[in-house]
Parts: sequence; structure tokens; C-alpha cells
Amino acid sequence: TIRDAVLAFYRQQQASTGPLAGCRAMVTAGPTHEPIDPVRYLANRSSGQQGFAIAAALADMGADVTLVSGPVHLSPPAGVTYLACETAREMHALVMGSGQFDVAVCTAAVADWRPEHEAAQKMKKTGLQDVPPAIKLVPNPDILAELSATGSTRPKLVIGFAAETENMVAHAIAKRQRKQCDWIVANDVSPATGIMGGQDNQIVLITPDRVEPWPKMNKTEVAKQLAARITVWFSE
Amino acid sequence: TIRDAVLAFYRQQQASTGPLAGCRAMVTAGPTHEPIDPVRYLANRSSGQQGFAIAAALADMGADVTLVSGPVHLSPPAGVTYLACETAREMHALVMGSGQFDVAVCTAAVADWRPEHEAAQKMKKTGLQDVPPAIKLVPNPDILAELSATGSTRPKLVIGFAAETENMVAHAIAKRQRKQCDWIVANDVSPATGIMGGQDNQIVLITPDRVEPWPKMNKTEVAKQLAARITVWFSE
Repeated sequence: TIRDAVLAFYRQQQASTGPLAGCRAMVTAGPTHEPIDPVRYLANRSSGQQGFAIAAALADMGADVTLVSGPVHLSPPAGVTYLACETAREMHALVMGSGQFDVAVCTAAVADWRPEHEAAQKMKKTGLQDVPPAIKLVPNPDILAELSATGSTRPKLVIGFAAETENMVAHAIAKRQRKQCDWIVANDVSPATGIMGGQDNQIVLITPDRVEPWPKMNKTEVAKQLAARITVWFSE
Repeated sequence: TIRDAVLAFYRQQQASTGPLAGCRAMVTAGPTHEPIDPVRYLANRSSGQQGFAIAAALADMGADVTLVSGPVHLSPPAGVTYLACETAREMHALVMGSGQFDVAVCTAAVADWRPEHEAAQKMKKTGLQDVPPAIKLVPNPDILAELSATGSTRPKLVIGFAAETENMVAHAIAKRQRKQCDWIVANDVSPATGIMGGQDNQIVLITPDRVEPWPKMNKTEVAKQLAARITVWFSE
């Protein structure tokens, strides 16, 4: 579209002159789908909107953005390197295989667990008396924790997301410490909030020394303000 | 859109004069999503395209069509009563609660099983040493079998779909007998075929006395030919 062409042109200009020019950014977004058999899978609810908006906002600041996303129904933002995947293991391979980054923003709702075995053929239900199978789970790679591990390749700033349905701030503070990321963006995804799949978000930004509740605003605005905060952090 | 307005007008005319005028049709489509907790669910791969196309083709013939669909990213066909749902139990309630039908076409990829318990809060992964939960499953209501059960409210013609990845025709013939539906439309949804989520379909129509492999064609054409067959059946 014309809008995309204009945005791509603007972002290309910003890549030389914007406040984040020369900054390599990795953004993960969307859910992951973990196959059970050829027709069934485990999924997480995530529209990908917040992550796509953050990728676009960082590109607007001039960052060189790679967006790695699970299955979503969104068009990739103009001027952003877009890598699509389905499972947590695929996302992990794309994130780890894309080189070094200055900032990583992990918005993806990565499945913590996947089925231990993927059946090669559709599991059949042959009769009402059948005992249904139980799905045994095993842990997926922890992309946020791995990115946050100290080392020469660690991004300077690693930002995680915490989607919670209760005790949001306490859970998110614990997650920041456990994962060893720098900031956590916490949000309440209880169905009653309408945040999941909706246009608006209400977040709490948790840094090493502060807990900042932000007012409710749309996801594009959250993305712009977060990109602005990242820009300030890099300028300090 | 203008196209939708024209289609709705055409279908309204056909409802008086078309070959299926006066015929009440129920079409189910899409996957079902079975919640595990507020952010996780079990899903089936189904784009809903074939079912939506069949609903439209039946409306073109003048049928009074109710389309019950799980979560999909498609616009409801013009001139069709559209009922959206998420789980197999919701789909069952909508199908059974919508009155009597002359024909039912069950294309939906209804989950055979659902998690026994839906957690009210997000299941937390608190450490790498955690033992992951196993998801215990219980059977969902069998909409096709229930519609096919003999009784005064049984649709005159009940058509099921069988999505298979191996021994397609044998499995589909067995499914027709087990479910007691009249026809089964069998298709091979192995990922290599590209049928799942794709534009084309290659089906085998199984009736009480015949097994008819159809050539590969797009899903709209499959829908038109199936609607034509239904029309012939009602005229005999």
C-alpha cells in the first residue's frame, strides 16, 4: 500500500538520522502453537498487536528491527525484517540465530510447555467408550531467560512481558528477578479486562528500581511511549 | 460491501424461487478452542473456508442457512444466519438449540476431547525444575452423531466430514457407519497436501452405496457441486 511505502521510506531515513539509528532491535510477538498431531495443537491467546506496534515504533526511531512472530493475522510493519514461526523451538532458533542485538523486547506469549510427543498421524477417536489420551508436557526453551543470561552477546537492554491474571505486580517482579531481564512490562490479561485481542492495554513497567503503573491507552500509544523510554535509556 | 448487498438480495430472491427454497440448512464450520486456563487452549487446525463456502452455496440455491462457526478469520456469507462460538460445548448448544433442519452439513473440526478442568487463573511456571502438568482430557459432545440419531427431529440429510491423514477412505466409511450420518465427505489433511488452510480441496464423497473420488478443485467449486448434489437429493 501507499501507506506502507511511505512508512518504509520514513523508517529508512530514520535509520541514518533517527535517535535509535544504528541500534539493532529484536522483538518477539504472537503466540506459539505446539503440535499434538497433524491437526491438533496447544495454543496461547495472543493477537500479536502489542509486539507488532513496538516493532513499528522502534523502526520509527531509526532502529534496525527484526520481528520474530508466531501465527498471527497481522501484516508485518513496513521496513522491519519479519521472521515467521509456529513453535517455541522455532522461535528460539530464529531469535538465537539472528546475530547480536542491542535491545530485545520479548512480547511473545511463548508456550511454557509442549506435548512430549507429536503424533505423526491424527489421533483417532474410535468409540465413545475410549479412554481419552492425556497430553504429557515437557518444558520449552526459555527465550527470555536465555537472552538475559550474562555474556558477551547479551543485548544491553532486555525487556520481558508478563501476562498475568492475578497478583500481577508481585508475579512480574518475581519474573524479572528469575529471568534476569532488565525491565518487565506487566499486564493483566484476565478475560474481563478485554486487553487480550483488544485495542487497548494497561501496563505496569517494572525496572530495577521502580514500579510504574501507566494509564490505560491504546497499544500503539503504549508502543510509542515504550520506544521513547528505550531511546532515553540508550541516550543516558 | 456492494458485493455483499447484491449477494444478500440474490439469496433473498432465491429463498422464494430457488431449487432449495423452503429448505432449512445447518452448516457447522471452523475449529473449536478448548480452554486450559485464561490464556491457553487446545485447538484444531481448520480455516473454516470449506464450511463458509458450503453455507454460501446452499444460500445461493435458496436454502435458509444457519452457519455455526468456531473461531475463524472469515466474514460471514451474506444472507446467512451466523452464530459464532468457541468451544465444542457452545457449538453443540447452538446447533441443538436452533430448531429443526432439513439438511445438516457438519464441516467443523470439533475437538473430540477437552481438558477436564479449566483453571480459573493462569497456570504458573515458577522454575525450570518444575514438573510440567499433564492435561487430562474428557470427551466432548458428538454433534454429528447426535444429529444423526434417529428421531422425529433428525434432519432428512446429515452430511459429515472426515479429516484424515491415513487410510482415508476406510476411516471415512467406518465413520459414516459409526456416526449414522447419510453422507461423509472425506479429505486428506496431511500437511503435505496443502489442503488445510489452502484454497483447494480434494474430496471423496461417501454415500450409502457409493465411494466417489472427486477431482481436485477449489473449495468454492467443491461447495457448489456439493450444494448441487444436495439439491438433486431433495428433488428425488
